[in-house]
Amino acid sequence: MVGIIMGSISDLKVMQEAVDACNEFGVPYEIDIVSAHRTPLKMIEYARTARERGVQVIVAGAGGAAHLPGMVASVTTLPVIGVPVKSSNSIDGWDSVLSILQMPGGVPVATVALNGAKNAGLLAIQIIGVGNKEIADKLQAYKIALEAKVEEMSLQAKAGLPPV
Amino acid sequence: MVGIIMGSISDLKVMQEAVDACNEFGVPYEIDIVSAHRTPLKMIEYARTARERGVQVIVAGAGGAAHLPGMVASVTTLPVIGVPVKSSNSIDGWDSVLSILQMPGGVPVATVALNGAKNAGLLAIQIIGVGNKEIADKLQAYKIALEAKVEEMSLQAKAGLPPV
Amino acid sequence: MVGIIMGSISDLKVMQEAVDACNEFGVPYEIDIVSAHRTPLKMIEYARTARERGVQVIVAGAGGAAHLPGMVASVTTLPVIGVPVKSSNSIDGWDSVLSILQMPGGVPVATVALNGAKNAGLLAIQIIGVGNKEIADKLQAYKIALEAKVEEMSLQAKAGLPPV
Amino acid sequence: MVGIIMGSISDLKVMQEAVDACNEFGVPYEIDIVSAHRTPLKMIEYARTARERGVQVIVAGAGGAAHLPGMVASVTTLPVIGVPVKSSNSIDGWDSVLSILQMPGGVPVATVALNGAKNAGLLAIQIIGVGNKEIADKLQAYKIALEAKVEEMSLQAKAGLPPV
Amino acid sequence: MVGIIMGSISDLKVMQEAVDACNEFGVPYEIDIVSAHRTPLKMIEYARTARERGVQVIVAGAGGAAHLPGMVASVTTLPVIGVPVKSSNSIDGWDSVLSILQMPGGVPVATVALNGAKNAGLLAIQIIGVGNKEIADKLQAYKIALEAKVEEMSLQAKAGLPPV
Amino acid sequence: MVGIIMGSISDLKVMQEAVDACNEFGVPYEIDIVSAHRTPLKMIEYARTARERGVQVIVAGAGGAAHLPGMVASVTTLPVIGVPVKSSNSIDGWDSVLSILQMPGGVPVATVALNGAKNAGLLAIQIIGVGNKEIADKLQAYKIALEAKVEEMSLQAKAGLPPV
Amino acid sequence: MVGIIMGSISDLKVMQEAVDACNEFGVPYEIDIVSAHRTPLKMIEYARTARERGVQVIVAGAGGAAHLPGMVASVTTLPVIGVPVKSSNSIDGWDSVLSILQMPGGVPVATVALNGAKNAGLLAIQIIGVGNKEIADKLQAYKIALEAKVEEMSLQAKAGLPPV
Amino acid sequence: MVGIIMGSISDLKVMQEAVDACNEFGVPYEIDIVSAHRTPLKMIEYARTARERGVQVIVAGAGGAAHLPGMVASVTTLPVIGVPVKSSNSIDGWDSVLSILQMPGGVPVATVALNGAKNAGLLAIQIIGVGNKEIADKLQAYKIALEAKVEEMSLQAKAGLPPV
Repeated sequence: MVGIIMGSISDLKVMQEAVDACNEFGVPYEIDIVSAHRTPLKMIEYARTARERGVQVIVAGAGGAAHLPGMVASVTTLPVIGVPVKSSNSIDGWDSVLSILQMPGGVPVATVALNGAKNAGLLAIQIIGVGNKEIADKLQAYKIALEAKVEEMSLQAKAGLPPV
Repeated sequence: MVGIIMGSISDLKVMQEAVDACNEFGVPYEIDIVSAHRTPLKMIEYARTARERGVQVIVAGAGGAAHLPGMVASVTTLPVIGVPVKSSNSIDGWDSVLSILQMPGGVPVATVALNGAKNAGLLAIQIIGVGNKEIADKLQAYKIALEAKVEEMSLQAKAGLPPV
Repeated sequence: MVGIIMGSISDLKVMQEAVDACNEFGVPYEIDIVSAHRTPLKMIEYARTARERGVQVIVAGAGGAAHLPGMVASVTTLPVIGVPVKSSNSIDGWDSVLSILQMPGGVPVATVALNGAKNAGLLAIQIIGVGNKEIADKLQAYKIALEAKVEEMSLQAKAGLPPV
Repeated sequence: MVGIIMGSISDLKVMQEAVDACNEFGVPYEIDIVSAHRTPLKMIEYARTARERGVQVIVAGAGGAAHLPGMVASVTTLPVIGVPVKSSNSIDGWDSVLSILQMPGGVPVATVALNGAKNAGLLAIQIIGVGNKEIADKLQAYKIALEAKVEEMSLQAKAGLPPV
Repeated sequence: MVGIIMGSISDLKVMQEAVDACNEFGVPYEIDIVSAHRTPLKMIEYARTARERGVQVIVAGAGGAAHLPGMVASVTTLPVIGVPVKSSNSIDGWDSVLSILQMPGGVPVATVALNGAKNAGLLAIQIIGVGNKEIADKLQAYKIALEAKVEEMSLQAKAGLPPV
Repeated sequence: MVGIIMGSISDLKVMQEAVDACNEFGVPYEIDIVSAHRTPLKMIEYARTARERGVQVIVAGAGGAAHLPGMVASVTTLPVIGVPVKSSNSIDGWDSVLSILQMPGGVPVATVALNGAKNAGLLAIQIIGVGNKEIADKLQAYKIALEAKVEEMSLQAKAGLPPV
Repeated sequence: MVGIIMGSISDLKVMQEAVDACNEFGVPYEIDIVSAHRTPLKMIEYARTARERGVQVIVAGAGGAAHLPGMVASVTTLPVIGVPVKSSNSIDGWDSVLSILQMPGGVPVATVALNGAKNAGLLAIQIIGVGNKEIADKLQAYKIALEAKVEEMSLQAKAGLPPV
Repeated sequence: MVGIIMGSISDLKVMQEAVDACNEFGVPYEIDIVSAHRTPLKMIEYARTARERGVQVIVAGAGGAAHLPGMVASVTTLPVIGVPVKSSNSIDGWDSVLSILQMPGGVPVATVALNGAKNAGLLAIQIIGVGNKEIADKLQAYKIALEAKVEEMSLQAKAGLPPV
């Protein structure tokens, strides 16, 4: 199961793509709003009990001085994927990116691109798929679909059709 | 009393200036190593009990994805001063600065300059001095001393003496 | 009393959140337009007489080459909180942030996030609350309200309701 | 098994920490020099056959226009961890960080901090530990050791001993 | 012949200017969608056979972690011109620019400005024009037309006419 | 006389403020479109003959890889003021700012803020006013008017009136 | 006369080049240490009386949150040249550059390159030379000397001699 | 023939790698010191006569506000390769990179990595090799040698030998 958390429900318009990825691959998930700065005790409790609740990977999205992914990683031994969210008063997203990426030695966070919730979901699925033939096969099929989509665009471009 | 904390004893070579400021103004302080990422529970306990232990202001130094000041501020209602420390693998200090500065609405951290522990100490003293005539007088005297030092340099420059 | 100043009335749309925080906590404040670059003498007079007028903390907002917070701090021994305002010709806010944050040793400014006037107001209230049980209790209640709001969003997210 | 690769043997002084982590946790690994720009076909072959060779996670370090992690991720469905290496002509590491982090939707790379090979190793171990009680227990013990080390530094700081 | 490729048909609204330049100078070109991350094998095949297909210069546009130009350059010995495209989730274009520009020694990419597809087309034409008197003459005429256009604007400005 | 030049008539919407300043102070000016990259010979001729034509200061606006101010300064011994213009494909204005500011020793350019044409005009007037009592007096009156405008905003803010 | 000021005598190792330029051109100057943050009243007095003391241009160097040039410009109507100094705890010089460059409309500062004191001196001399044939001739001779020096290096390079 | 120019002989320690590449491939070159800011007329003359002198590609290195490559490109219709040199007072190389890269539409410069003179030389050779089978074959052999060198490092790494 993938645990998907974020600091505010307003982050859901970015984080929905992680949910969608789980749905697309049939991987179960739980979703919650957990704020490092407004609910620190809930956050610690969330992280402390994640493994025993059956969570295998945590996807955490946060913006600005984004402390949620790193703090969750300080408590759990599960892999934590951080999604830097470009929030409204962010300095072009640099704050979210650096606050999540630059973790000290000993406490890793797997960081994805700014607003990269889709890739966070896929990475979570890849992690679960490490020892899971069925998921690995679906991931392979997903890759082939990506390729096919490019081929379609290739034909369109060669035919001089305008981009859709 | 000023609570001075940092994530690692290696930060002390920067944070010592906050200690020195307290000593210079005769303001009591306590010092501790508290790591957001390695001792999250101690950090929460530290912040939760700070006010009742007599701490009036907290000065927290951290580098990289610097979560200590913001997480302490999430638990206590005391003013928290954050010192971005330029650590060895920092991206020129930008990570520390942005991780401390860009706190979300509701949970302020008073951020000072990169490696600005001296100013963090002085700011803590100014805060304690808000309702304290004796400290306010000392701060005024400190300002006059700063001015005098510039005047000394002014004479030196006009006399064409080389900088020391 | 909190002294809230800014370089131009156009900054008020950002700085209003500091005013609102004072109103919410019942903390008195005075408001003024004081420009480092257009009214340098008024600025110095403002800062010089602030403590004797009963001001306990100064909140100063400024954009671009934002000199107001630092110059006010050069004159007064009160704590000064600087709000970097993202003005129209700003280089993404970096100018305001760095001009306020990177003060030299001896003259601290407590910097908050870009456009972070709400946190500036809260920080001023925390500073006044250092020795004030009533304000400290209100700040604790404010924290609990923040937490409750997250819990509400948590229920909403779990119920699959769209963000409002 | 963890596959540890890098573009040049000169990156090994950074990447050795990933090797050390594997050794510390008794997790098997293979090591190779694979360059996106100088051995593109070997890179593709490496990635294509990784899963069938028993690799479970790939750790790829690269500097400058760092294409190795993303290109490996384009071929395999295994999780790929990217380590931005601060190479000699790098623009302060920003090139490595952004070239690895900002992957397009569909092809995730788990990025760690600049020169963060230690965390890359630990993250690989966490991933392998998702369904492995023994590794999970070792990771928990590792966390406790980190905590103990901070406590040691705490005693040292309180005793006024200089940092070692 | 100029080979013009890009990672997605959505890049065509930027890359069209390279096509237009070829048309304006009567230089033949082929256009295709080739993605480093979604069609790595097609990309390698494209680059490997480019010279024998009659391609003289390759213009490759890509955004974010833009690996297409550099990877194509790793396979072919033709000159490769990279166009950093400012895509939607880009961090202000810095990711595309640095991913294309900062190639390691041995594998050059000729980088042009952010979204600079027009100049990429012109540069390709200049390269083909190195040993081609006719194209060189057209390029000279193009320069004279640029100059004339400025002179027209000069008259307009001196006459106090508003910009069109 | 102030020489006001820019690379394209599209820059006039920014540069008009320099023209306005000259008009406001009754300082004569000439205006022209001169492009470093499209009319290099005209640019050199413009700069070479400026002093003998009666130009006293040159104000040059340019965007992107902004070479106009620095190249003009390479030819004339008059003071040259550079205005970094934030053009459409600029990387947030950084390119214009750094291309104008970072001149090598021996060839100064007086750089003003991004899009700061108003200040460029005022600086030109200050330069002409160095030995001109009448202009100096007008500049002093201008300063007083700036101050008065702030006082007006001050009254407005204290009265709780909304910003206009 | 050129007024050369800086915030600390430690800045003199950078600012000496402005002094040297004045000496080279036989332009008189006065030198002083004036700190915006430590001697705000002296700074205002310095700026207020500069014109009547015979100062024609002010060159002000400062580092970090560099307020000296802008504040001096807020008081005087003389042209003020700002030199961003890369001080020890500066964030790579960006703080000094942006604090000096990004002045609001109405109060210009002529900014030169990071540590560009030589060009600040030359710019001051150019300004004084606007209406001064003798200085203009010296500036022309200086340009010719720069050119000659390049020609010397040209011969050296063509002869295959190593750089000195 | 490749024309290799730079603004100062001190740039030769970076630019030597372009010379070395020409020597390695047996491609003739001429070398000269040409400064945009100190010898603008020589620069224009150099560029204007380059094609008729037999130059096929120009490699121009410059630092800081690096105007040489772009100005040369404004005069010639030959392809111009720009090498951003990280000079002593550069702001981490960003000034050189952006001054060369961000050319306006109509006047392309082929930009390589910071200090990337080796790749500039190779790119020049690739350009000359567009219609030259012998050079193309040498470039192919060069690629194979790069690959072999990686294989050597691969064996070394697998054998656990330390990097040399």
